[in-house]
Amino acid sequence: MLINCVAYRNGRKLADLPVAGISDYLARDDTFVWVAMRDASPAELAQMQAEFGLHELAVEDAQRGHQRPKIEEYGDSLFVVVKTVEQQGDELVLGEIDIFVGRNYVLSSRQNSTHDMMGVRARAEREPHLLRHGAGFVLYALMDAAVDRYFPLVNALESELEQIEERIFAGTSQRDNIEQLYDLKRKVMILRHAVAPLLDAIGKLHGGRVPEVCANSQEYFRDVHDHLASINGILDSIRDTIATAIQVNLSMIALEEGEVNKRLAAWAAIFGVLTAFAGIWGMNFEFMPELKSKYGYPLALAAMFSVCFYLYRRFRKARWL
Amino acid sequence: MLINCVAYRNGRKLADLPVAGISDYLARDDTFVWVAMRDASPAELAQMQAEFGLHELAVEDAQRGHQRPKIEEYGDSLFVVVKTVEQQGDELVLGEIDIFVGRNYVLSSRQNSTHDMMGVRARAEREPHLLRHGAGFVLYALMDAAVDRYFPLVNALESELEQIEERIFAGTSQRDNIEQLYDLKRKVMILRHAVAPLLDAIGKLHGGRVPEVCANSQEYFRDVHDHLASINGILDSIRDTIATAIQVNLSMIALEEGEVNKRLAAWAAIFGVLTAFAGIWGMNFEFMPELKSKYGYPLALAAMFSVCFYLYRRFRKARWL
Amino acid sequence: MLINCVAYRNGRKLADLPVAGISDYLARDDTFVWVAMRDASPAELAQMQAEFGLHELAVEDAQRGHQRPKIEEYGDSLFVVVKTVEQQGDELVLGEIDIFVGRNYVLSSRQNSTHDMMGVRARAEREPHLLRHGAGFVLYALMDAAVDRYFPLVNALESELEQIEERIFAGTSQRDNIEQLYDLKRKVMILRHAVAPLLDAIGKLHGGRVPEVCANSQEYFRDVHDHLASINGILDSIRDTIATAIQVNLSMIALEEGEVNKRLAAWAAIFGVLTAFAGIWGMNFEFMPELKSKYGYPLALAAMFSVCFYLYRRFRKARWL
Amino acid sequence: MLINCVAYRNGRKLADLPVAGISDYLARDDTFVWVAMRDASPAELAQMQAEFGLHELAVEDAQRGHQRPKIEEYGDSLFVVVKTVEQQGDELVLGEIDIFVGRNYVLSSRQNSTHDMMGVRARAEREPHLLRHGAGFVLYALMDAAVDRYFPLVNALESELEQIEERIFAGTSQRDNIEQLYDLKRKVMILRHAVAPLLDAIGKLHGGRVPEVCANSQEYFRDVHDHLASINGILDSIRDTIATAIQVNLSMIALEEGEVNKRLAAWAAIFGVLTAFAGIWGMNFEFMPELKSKYGYPLALAAMFSVCFYLYRRFRKARWL
Amino acid sequence: MLINCVAYRNGRKLADLPVAGISDYLARDDTFVWVAMRDASPAELAQMQAEFGLHELAVEDAQRGHQRPKIEEYGDSLFVVVKTVEQQGDELVLGEIDIFVGRNYVLSSRQNSTHDMMGVRARAEREPHLLRHGAGFVLYALMDAAVDRYFPLVNALESELEQIEERIFAGTSQRDNIEQLYDLKRKVMILRHAVAPLLDAIGKLHGGRVPEVCANSQEYFRDVHDHLASINGILDSIRDTIATAIQVNLSMIALEEGEVNKRLAAWAAIFGVLTAFAGIWGMNFEFMPELKSKYGYPLALAAMFSVCFYLYRRFRKARWL
Repeated sequence: MLINCVAYRNGRKLADLPVAGISDYLARDDTFVWVAMRDASPAELAQMQAEFGLHELAVEDAQRGHQRPKIEEYGDSLFVVVKTVEQQGDELVLGEIDIFVGRNYVLSSRQNSTHDMMGVRARAEREPHLLRHGAGFVLYALMDAAVDRYFPLVNALESELEQIEERIFAGTSQRDNIEQLYDLKRKVMILRHAVAPLLDAIGKLHGGRVPEVCANSQEYFRDVHDHLASINGILDSIRDTIATAIQVNLSMIALEEGEVNKRLAAWAAIFGVLTAFAGIWGMNFEFMPELKSKYGYPLALAAMFSVCFYLYRRFRKARWL
Repeated sequence: MLINCVAYRNGRKLADLPVAGISDYLARDDTFVWVAMRDASPAELAQMQAEFGLHELAVEDAQRGHQRPKIEEYGDSLFVVVKTVEQQGDELVLGEIDIFVGRNYVLSSRQNSTHDMMGVRARAEREPHLLRHGAGFVLYALMDAAVDRYFPLVNALESELEQIEERIFAGTSQRDNIEQLYDLKRKVMILRHAVAPLLDAIGKLHGGRVPEVCANSQEYFRDVHDHLASINGILDSIRDTIATAIQVNLSMIALEEGEVNKRLAAWAAIFGVLTAFAGIWGMNFEFMPELKSKYGYPLALAAMFSVCFYLYRRFRKARWL
Repeated sequence: MLINCVAYRNGRKLADLPVAGISDYLARDDTFVWVAMRDASPAELAQMQAEFGLHELAVEDAQRGHQRPKIEEYGDSLFVVVKTVEQQGDELVLGEIDIFVGRNYVLSSRQNSTHDMMGVRARAEREPHLLRHGAGFVLYALMDAAVDRYFPLVNALESELEQIEERIFAGTSQRDNIEQLYDLKRKVMILRHAVAPLLDAIGKLHGGRVPEVCANSQEYFRDVHDHLASINGILDSIRDTIATAIQVNLSMIALEEGEVNKRLAAWAAIFGVLTAFAGIWGMNFEFMPELKSKYGYPLALAAMFSVCFYLYRRFRKARWL
Repeated sequence: MLINCVAYRNGRKLADLPVAGISDYLARDDTFVWVAMRDASPAELAQMQAEFGLHELAVEDAQRGHQRPKIEEYGDSLFVVVKTVEQQGDELVLGEIDIFVGRNYVLSSRQNSTHDMMGVRARAEREPHLLRHGAGFVLYALMDAAVDRYFPLVNALESELEQIEERIFAGTSQRDNIEQLYDLKRKVMILRHAVAPLLDAIGKLHGGRVPEVCANSQEYFRDVHDHLASINGILDSIRDTIATAIQVNLSMIALEEGEVNKRLAAWAAIFGVLTAFAGIWGMNFEFMPELKSKYGYPLALAAMFSVCFYLYRRFRKARWL
Repeated sequence: MLINCVAYRNGRKLADLPVAGISDYLARDDTFVWVAMRDASPAELAQMQAEFGLHELAVEDAQRGHQRPKIEEYGDSLFVVVKTVEQQGDELVLGEIDIFVGRNYVLSSRQNSTHDMMGVRARAEREPHLLRHGAGFVLYALMDAAVDRYFPLVNALESELEQIEERIFAGTSQRDNIEQLYDLKRKVMILRHAVAPLLDAIGKLHGGRVPEVCANSQEYFRDVHDHLASINGILDSIRDTIATAIQVNLSMIALEEGEVNKRLAAWAAIFGVLTAFAGIWGMNFEFMPELKSKYGYPLALAAMFSVCFYLYRRFRKARWL
C-alpha cells in the first residue's frame, strides 16, 4: 500500500506524485523523490521496480521478506534491510523495513510493522536544509529512527532481568524464574538477530571506502553504528548474565533442597528417638522394674521429651531447623 | 550414471550429446556444455576427466566423496562441493553434489542424494536469456537450488526445539527431553558441517577478486551467501538454545526432586508423629491413668488425628504437599 | 557548570577567560585554551559549541550522556568519551567525562562524577614544558588520570573475590557466597563496559595512522593503552574465575548435601534397628521364653545398645558420622 | 639410524649413497637426494647438518624432539615438523617426523614412530614423473601419508563416542561413561595438538606468497590443508559433543536419583501407614471395643492391607513405583 | 643493585665499567655495553636513564613494576618486560625482568626474582662469535633463558592435574579435589598472564617489519615464539581440562550421593518391614490365634527374617547394597 510519494527540490516539497510519474522526476537531476509504502503487494513492488529501475534480486528479497538485516550495493544504489521489533503483549514481533536508496531517491517499504516513519518525513520537511543533504541523509534518518526504537526494548529486558534476579535471591518461585530466564534469553536472541548483522553491515557506510550516496553523511552513520554497538553490548551483557543466573538459580535450588534434607533429617531423628524409647518401654519383659513404679510413666515422658528438646535445640543451633 | 549431456548456443539447446562428443563442442567458443551425472562410477569420472580436461585432484575428491563443502580454483576452472542433507525417517542423511565449472561448461555429479536438479535445467531452458549469462550463472542456479533445500530442514529443527521446550516447562517426560535435545544437537551439527564451510568458501565468489567465470554473477552469489549466513545464524541460535535448554532441564529435574523430597519429609513427619503417639500409649507402665479412662481411646485417637491434620494443613500451606 | 576557562601561551597561564572570549583566543595560533565543565546544561553546551565550533553530533552525545567510551574524529578535532566509575557504598556508579580536543584547545565536561581533574591542571601549570606539547598531551593527561582511578576498583574486586573463595572452601554461608559472586560479576561487567570499548578505541591514537593532534604523544597513549589492557586482562581473569567459583560452590553444596544424606542414613539405620528390636520383644506371643527370664530385660537392652554402638563405630569409621 | 639415502636424476634412481657423498650430489643441479632416518642420534644429525648445510636451530629442534607441528623457512629451505599419532593398546602415542626440504633434497627423520614412509618412496620410484616435480612434491607426499593416518584414529574416536552415547541413554554404568568421556576428551586433545598447529602452518604453502620450493605443488598442499581442516572439524564436533554428553549424563544421574527418591518415598509411606495402624491397635487403653471382637483382627489386617494396596496402586499409577 | 657492567668489543670483554663511564663507551661505534641490575632503586634507574638516554615512560614502567609482559619500541631502542614465575612452597611468585635494548647496549634489571642470568653472560663470553651478533642476540639469549624456565612449571602443573584426575575417578577426597582443581586453575592463570601477552608481543620481532636491532636474529626470536606458543597451548589444554574435571567431579559427587540414597532406601525398607511385622503381632486384639501357638514366636521370627533376607538379596542383586 502506498503511503507517500513526494518529489522535493532544494529540500522543499514540489508535489505529491502519482506512481507512474516517478521515473519522469527521477530523470531530472535537481529533483529528489521519496516514496513510502507498507505491506506492498507484488504488483506494487513490480511497478516500483519499473519506475526506479531496481535490481531484480533486491526486489525479490523485499517481496519474500524475512531477510536478515543487511546493506547491499547494486551498482551505485543501495538496498538496506532493517528489522523492526515490537512488543505485542508478552511477545516480541519482528517486522522489516526495506529501503532502496539511489542518487536522488529513497523508497522505503515496511512489512508487519506498526512503526510508521511519518515523524522522519515531517521533521525533514520542517527543516529543508537537512533534505538538501540528499538520499544518504534520508537513509540515515530512517535508520536512526528504527534503531532508536530498540532502546526501550533493551531497557525493558534489562529491568525484567533485574526483577528475576531479585526473586532468585529471595528464593521464591524458582520454577517461574527458570521459565522467565529462558523466555528472556529467547527475546534477547530475537533482538540480537535484528541488531548484530546490521552492526556488521553499517561499518561499510563510514570510514574506508563508502558508497557514493552516503559519502557526505559518514559521521551520521558512525553515530548509528555507535548506537547499535551500544545496544549490542548490553544484549551481550544480558545474555552472559542470564547464563550465570541460570547457574545461580540451580545452586539456589540445590541449597534449598539441602536445607529441606537437613530439616527432614532433624525431625526424623527426633521422632525416631521418641519412637525408640516408647518401643523399649513397650516391650513385654516380665521383669522391668521401672514399669511398676508409680512415677515411671511421668519420668519416662519427661526423659523422652527432654531428649527431644535437647535434640531440637541442638539442631536449631546448627541451623538445621 | 549419466543423466543429461546437452550442448547450448545462445541460451538455446543445440543437441543431446554423446559423452565422447563433449570435447569437440567445448572447443567451439560459442557453445556451452552442461552435463549432469549421478553416483558416477570411477570409469565415468575418468571419461569426463578426459573430455573436460579436469584436474586430477578434483576428480580424486569427487571419486572419494565425503568431502567438506568447498570451492577450489584449478587454473581458470572451479571445483565446487555442496552437501545435500535429506530427512530420511528420523535421520538426516548427507549427500554431495560435485560441480566442475569451466569457461563454457558445467558438470555436476551428485552422490547419495535424491535431490535431482531437473528443475534448474528446465527453468534455464525455458528462459534462454538466463543461460546466456554462462557457466557462472548455472553454478549459481545449482547452488541456490541446493541451499534452498536447507530451509525446510532448519525450520523443522526449530519447531522440534519448540516442542521440547514446551514439554520441559510442562515438566513431563524429562528423560525423553534430554534424549531429544541431544539428538537435535546432533542434527544441528550435521547441518552446520554442510553450511559453515560453504559460507566461508562462497565469500570468494563475490566482492574482492573473483574467479573469471563468476565475475558477472557476483550479486547472485552474494544472495546465496546471504541465505547461507541466515541459515548459519539460525543454527547458531538453535545450538545456543539447546545448551541453555539442557541446563534448564537439569534445573527442572532438581526442582522436581526437591518437591518430592519435601513431600517425603511431610508424610514422614505425619506418620512419625502418629507412630510416636501410638508408641507412647503402647508402653507397659502400670500407672498410666488415661489408659483406664473410658474416653481415653477416642480422645487419644482424636488428639492424634488433630495433630496430623494440623501438620497436613501446615504443610499444605507451605506447599510441601 | 563552568569550572575553569583558561588561556595559555608557551605553557604558561595567560588569563582566566570569560566564555564569550574563547573564540577570540582560539583564533590566535600561539594560544591554547583549556576549559573544564561539570554537569553542563544544554545552554552551556550550546554556547561552547558556538565558541569552539564543535560538531553537532558530538554535542548531542555529550548532552544525552550514557555513551559508550569512544574516540571519534570530526575533521581534525577529536571527541573522546571516558567513563568514570566510583564506589558509592556497595555500588559502582558510572559517570562520564566528555573531552573535545582541537588543534589548540581542550574542553572537558564531566557528568555524574565527583572525579575532578584539578590535579591534572595543577601539575600542568607547575611544569610548563608539558603544556607546550599541546592539546594531545592534555588529552593524554586527562585520560591517564581517569584510567588510573580504575586500578583501586579492580584491586578491590580482586580481594573481594579472594574473600569469597576462602568462605567457599570453609563451607560457610554458601547462600551469601552465591549472591556475592553474582554481585561481583555485575560489578566486573560495569567496569568492563567502561574499559573494553576504550581499549579498542585508543588503538587509534598510537601506531599506524594517528589523528594529527595526538601525533607527537603516541608513546604516551600507548602507555594508557597498556594500562587499559592490563586492567582488561585482570577483569577477564576475575570473570573467568567467578564462573569457576560458581561451579565449585555448586559442587560444595552437593558435597555437603551428600554428607547430610549420609548422616541421615546412618542415624535412621541406628534408630531403625533399635525400634525393630523393641518391636520384636513387644510382640504378644504367649511363648516367648526370654520375656520370662529375670535377666531378659537388661540383656535385651545390652544387646540393643551393643548393636547400635557397633553401627555407630562403623559409620564413624566410614566417615558417615 | 639411517634407513635410505638415495640420489635421483630425472625422477629415476641413480644410486644408494654413502652419507659422506651427499654434499657432492647436492652440488649438481640436476640431481635430487632423498634421505630417510629414524631415531637419529645427535652424531648422525650433526653429520647430516654438515652434508646438507642445515640451520642450527632446525637441527636443535629435531634433536630435542617434542616440537609442535610447524613449517619454518630458513632462507630458501624448509623445516617441517609433523606429529604422528599411533594407537598402542588404549593409549594414543605421539611421535614426530622432522622433514628438511631444500631445492634438490629431502631429509626426513622420524622419532618414536612405527610409521615408515617406505610406501611413499616405493610409489615415487614406480612413477618417475612424480619425482620430477622435485622436493616440494616429495614433501607433499610425506605429509599426505602422515595426515592420512589421522583418519582411522578420528573415526575410532567417533565410534567410541557413539557407544558411550548409547550407554548414557540406556542408563547403564554411568560411572564408566564419565570416565570414558573424560578419557575420550584427552585423546581428542592429543590429536588436536597434532592437527591444529599444522593446519595453521600449512596455509603458508598455498595461496598468497609460497616458499619457492613448494610453488609448483600448491594445489597438492591445498588438498592436505583440506584434509586437515576436515579432521579438525570432526575433532571440534567431538569435543563439543563430549561437553554436552557430560552435561546430559549429569542430568541422567539426577533423573535416576530422583526416581530412587520417589520409590523411597513411596515405600516409606506404605510401611509408615502399616506401622502407624499397628501402633494404634497396639495401644494399651482398656476400653478399645474392636479389640474384643472376634473379627477384629482379620478385619484390621484387611483394612491395613487394603490401604497399603490402594497406596501401592496410586504410586504405581503416578509412576513412583 | 648493580650486578655487572661490562664493555665488549668484537665479542670479547674489554673492561668492567663504572656506571659513570657507560655513556663514553656507548659513544664508540664498535663497543657493546651490557649491564645487569637487580631490584634497582629509583636513584640507580635515574642514573641509568641518564647514561643510556632511556625514555622516561619506559623508566617509569620499570620503576613501578607489575607491568604486563610487553615489547615496546622507543625510536630505535626497545623496552622489553618479561615476567619470571617461581615456585615458592605451594605458591607461584611473579617477578619481572625489564630489558632496555639499544643499538650497542643491553641493560637488564630484574625485580623480585632469584633468577639470575649469569649463565647467559658466561656462555656469551665463552663463545665470542655469539656476542658479535650484537644487542638483538643478547636480548634473544635473555628471553630464551627466561622462557625456558616456564617449562618445568608447566610440566609440574600437568602432573598435578593427572594426580587429581586419578583421585577423582578413585572417588576419594572429593572436597580436596575441588579445592586443588581451583588452585591449579589459579596457577594456570598466573602463568598465562606471564606467557600470553609476551606471545602476542614477540610476533613483532620476526616476520614482517622488525625493529632494526633484532633484524639479524629473527630466526632466533621465531624460536622463542615457538616455545611460548607451545607453552600457551599446554596451558590452554590444562585450563580446558580443569573445567571438564570440575564438571566430572560434580557428576561423581552426584553419583555417589545417588548410591548413598539407594542404600538408605534399601535399609529403610528392610527395617520398615521388620517393624511393620512386629507392630502387627504387637497389636492387642484378643482373638489372634497365632499368638497362642507354641511355635508362633519362632515361626514369626523366621518369617520376618526370611522376608528381610529376601529383600537383602534382591537389593544386593540390583546393586543398591
